[in-house]
Amino acid sequence: MSRPHPGLGSPPPLPPSGLRITPLGGLGEIGRNMTVFEHAGRLLIVDCGVLFPENDQPGIDLILPDFSSIVHRLDDVEAIVLTHAHEDHIGAVPYLLRERADIPLIGSRLTLALMVAKLAEHRLTPVTVEVVEGDRRPWGPFECEFFAVNHSIPDAMAVAIRTEAGLVLHTGDFKMDQLPLDGRLTDLGGFARLGVEGVDLLMSDSTNAEVPGFVTSEREIAPVLNGVFREARKRVIVACFASHVHRVQQVLDAAEAHGRSVALVGRSMLRNMGVARDLGLLRVPPGLIIDSRDIDALPDRNICLISTGSQGEPLSALSRMANRDHSIRINPGDTVVLASSLIPGNENAVFRVINGLTRIGARVVHKGVAMVHTSGHAPAGELLYVLNATRPSNVMPIHGEWRHLRAHGALAEATGLPPDRIVLAEDGMVIDLVDGLARITGAVPCGYVYVDGLAVGDVGESSLKDRRILGDEGFISITVVVDAASGKVVGGPELSARGFSDAMSNFDNARQVVEEALAEAMRGGMTDKSALGQLMRRTVGRWVNENYRRRPMILPVVVEV
Amino acid sequence: MSRPHPGLGSPPPLPPSGLRITPLGGLGEIGRNMTVFEHAGRLLIVDCGVLFPENDQPGIDLILPDFSSIVHRLDDVEAIVLTHAHEDHIGAVPYLLRERADIPLIGSRLTLALMVAKLAEHRLTPVTVEVVEGDRRPWGPFECEFFAVNHSIPDAMAVAIRTEAGLVLHTGDFKMDQLPLDGRLTDLGGFARLGVEGVDLLMSDSTNAEVPGFVTSEREIAPVLNGVFREARKRVIVACFASHVHRVQQVLDAAEAHGRSVALVGRSMLRNMGVARDLGLLRVPPGLIIDSRDIDALPDRNICLISTGSQGEPLSALSRMANRDHSIRINPGDTVVLASSLIPGNENAVFRVINGLTRIGARVVHKGVAMVHTSGHAPAGELLYVLNATRPSNVMPIHGEWRHLRAHGALAEATGLPPDRIVLAEDGMVIDLVDGLARITGAVPCGYVYVDGLAVGDVGESSLKDRRILGDEGFISITVVVDAASGKVVGGPELSARGFSDAMSNFDNARQVVEEALAEAMRGGMTDKSALGQLMRRTVGRWVNENYRRRPMILPVVVEV
Repeated sequence: MSRPHPGLGSPPPLPPSGLRITPLGGLGEIGRNMTVFEHAGRLLIVDCGVLFPENDQPGIDLILPDFSSIVHRLDDVEAIVLTHAHEDHIGAVPYLLRERADIPLIGSRLTLALMVAKLAEHRLTPVTVEVVEGDRRPWGPFECEFFAVNHSIPDAMAVAIRTEAGLVLHTGDFKMDQLPLDGRLTDLGGFARLGVEGVDLLMSDSTNAEVPGFVTSEREIAPVLNGVFREARKRVIVACFASHVHRVQQVLDAAEAHGRSVALVGRSMLRNMGVARDLGLLRVPPGLIIDSRDIDALPDRNICLISTGSQGEPLSALSRMANRDHSIRINPGDTVVLASSLIPGNENAVFRVINGLTRIGARVVHKGVAMVHTSGHAPAGELLYVLNATRPSNVMPIHGEWRHLRAHGALAEATGLPPDRIVLAEDGMVIDLVDGLARITGAVPCGYVYVDGLAVGDVGESSLKDRRILGDEGFISITVVVDAASGKVVGGPELSARGFSDAMSNFDNARQVVEEALAEAMRGGMTDKSALGQLMRRTVGRWVNENYRRRPMILPVVVEV
Repeated sequence: MSRPHPGLGSPPPLPPSGLRITPLGGLGEIGRNMTVFEHAGRLLIVDCGVLFPENDQPGIDLILPDFSSIVHRLDDVEAIVLTHAHEDHIGAVPYLLRERADIPLIGSRLTLALMVAKLAEHRLTPVTVEVVEGDRRPWGPFECEFFAVNHSIPDAMAVAIRTEAGLVLHTGDFKMDQLPLDGRLTDLGGFARLGVEGVDLLMSDSTNAEVPGFVTSEREIAPVLNGVFREARKRVIVACFASHVHRVQQVLDAAEAHGRSVALVGRSMLRNMGVARDLGLLRVPPGLIIDSRDIDALPDRNICLISTGSQGEPLSALSRMANRDHSIRINPGDTVVLASSLIPGNENAVFRVINGLTRIGARVVHKGVAMVHTSGHAPAGELLYVLNATRPSNVMPIHGEWRHLRAHGALAEATGLPPDRIVLAEDGMVIDLVDGLARITGAVPCGYVYVDGLAVGDVGESSLKDRRILGDEGFISITVVVDAASGKVVGGPELSARGFSDAMSNFDNARQVVEEALAEAMRGGMTDKSALGQLMRRTVGRWVNENYRRRPMILPVVVEV
């Protein structure tokens, strides 16, 4: 398999008949999926999503793809194709449209409806072009054909992109539930037709490439939910993702069957289900849904709540209920169902919620103990179907960390593809499809772009490094006042610390040590502000190390009067 | 089941015939296991371990049990019984011995050997009393009988404690592998004998109470390891816990069978395996183990490394190898086996290591894809055996979070125990066993005691709260100099920020806003230092919120000259 190497430079000029593919997100990570296609001087973008920060990116709200390699070429962009409406595929669109507002957004009905709702929150009104599976339309030199795929949100699509350079199939996120709730199957027949035509490059979802076998059908959750509802004597609270229309549908159906009214809790849940209902994608029996403020009027056995917060987000309704810090009270005997995956990194937060609910006396049903969740991504068995149906000349695994990409590469190799036709790439690498061969030819800048509050890119690696130190160790600031004329210290040193010690019993001693060091330096003629600052930093650092064996950030401040 | 309530006060005086049990750790959490038994004015402690911090306890090295309820009664302590040598059972002993150095430590041979090695690092030489299973000896009014149990470290024991109040069985951590590598079975027959005598209270390990069924035998890992070794063409690196003697034994055996020399990597691995070998618990064929500095002299196919770092610890050898930041290089084609559990909270760190190794081109085998690990704790099926063998009058689930304790309680109830005989308690609760009934009668102070660097208890909740804010948002400090006589500002304001913004392009504007606010306040006659500080904090806070929508810590410093 062709491997990246650290010495990649700028890519060479693209031959006129070539297609250039630059993933700006989603390769080497799960999230911020975005791929730029270039042909004949024009660009087509597929997806533009966000990545959620990990623990070593503290305080960050979102991470965007790095637009720097295309920001000077936005006029060349024909369109953005959105495969489906998950945040990791559409979440960064508002930030790209800030740079050029009229890039057409191409997508299915639900995808565009949720995208438009999101953009409205950013006070943006996009140019949109609705497409359905089977549509085949050109945007500049890119002819796009759309295929239905089944995923954990309705109305998802794969896109085939035809140019002079050949045919590329980008699956988006998909799985192949053979009994999907809405009957809308992943169009394997369409993929096979492309295979007959000749797929030059398959770009396929790798998220579950390490998982053997096949997905369990979404349908199989219904009997489990019904069992939970049948046994429940008091309230039932179901937490799931706010975009999982089919999961919510199954909870609505179970609630209706067991005589429970349903209240939706959480802003995104209310918004998304409103959209899905308006589009006819969520069937809501008349009178079933009530306002969550009215639940106390009904007996507990007639109540079902559907809530966000399945990942243990500390500010979510569910976390606050588990902490008894929410207007909706959870009581002994209530049943809480976490009908969702457990995203790696969220384990402790989710277990905290489960422990809180358990402590109160609620029964907690989660995927560890019952079949209340099934993944949205194709496992190895289904990926093999797609590889065999499309019989691609080249494969590039997308949407995954290295472990997923490599596992997907191994599957491609097992189907008989030569190793040199399997492209394992990561964000920022440039892959050129020329004369039927896909090759890594270079790289473009591709860092993390952090959103924190209102600012984009204002917090960078330097601030994050400081945050990690501050968060682990706290800081000590030390201030002196220097007379500008004489260079003498005329005030301070004042020591302040935060996050360092609750006691700070020892600080008079530190002040004395600094005073002595300063006095000695002044006797030696030191007057330079930055030299004084360095002396204070060094002196306090040594004192802290000797007394505490710690390394807080030390901030010397020298003020001239 | 009797539930804790928030209104618990100090417990009433203990009747002379009663036994008081105070768990100071391990109930409501996984870690820092410690239980204090009191009878006839004397105390017996079982285990004294540490808890490892979570993400919301940044910078903390270790968390200790809160000794405050016993620290004034250390002269009453007869002994500390150590069930086995894991950190969460022995790690806090050095800190308790700082308070009274001559408390006798009771344990098996390996437990004491590892304990003594640990205490030597703290420059402590303890009083120890070695016991073996079958021993029955009094310490003050507590007659202790020891039972072999099987766990993920050799030489673990359960302890039965007989007093006038009755018979209590404390299992320690255990499982019931029926084909243990060393043939040392958990003594279910002994437990049954206690059952005939009459167990008044069973305190039993709950860690795996949510897991149905039975453990897989440690022995079943050998064929999997042999398969991995058979297929490997280059180096094999196995990471596992440094105390898991039997796991290391199986790796040694596989390495020997496949003609590979073994190098141990990691300080604790070297130390523990040295101790185990000296005690005859680890069988090392002559010449098999070589120094890790000598591995380059042998062909890759003749090398096996056994390393720590299976939890993705950033400074461990394995993490550094994955980052190519270690003298031992991992190369394409090497095989890395993570022969360990994945402790919740460590997922992202472990996946980072797996992705790093995969990116290099190594094959990574972990418990997600092969049977290279089996748990050390009894699942539900085995807990039922112990409940049925001992037929206790009262049960208190120990060693677990709330979800585990409650699941264990449900198992006890399923065996026929009345709900009011199942005590679900958490750290700091006082349980009195009087006239054959175990009841929660009160609570003692029981907070987290943090070790950070050299200091114990110096960093508390207040510092941690500050660290969380600093780590998420950074800080801005703002300094002015005030003339003590006139109360006028004569220097500054100086603004400094860390972790707030890489750019800080806007800070001149902030300084100006503060200057204006100060000038206006002075015109109004404000001279009080703390009022000036508050004004600066408020002004900068408002400016940050308007411009950034963030909430950094703001530290005003007013220096008088």
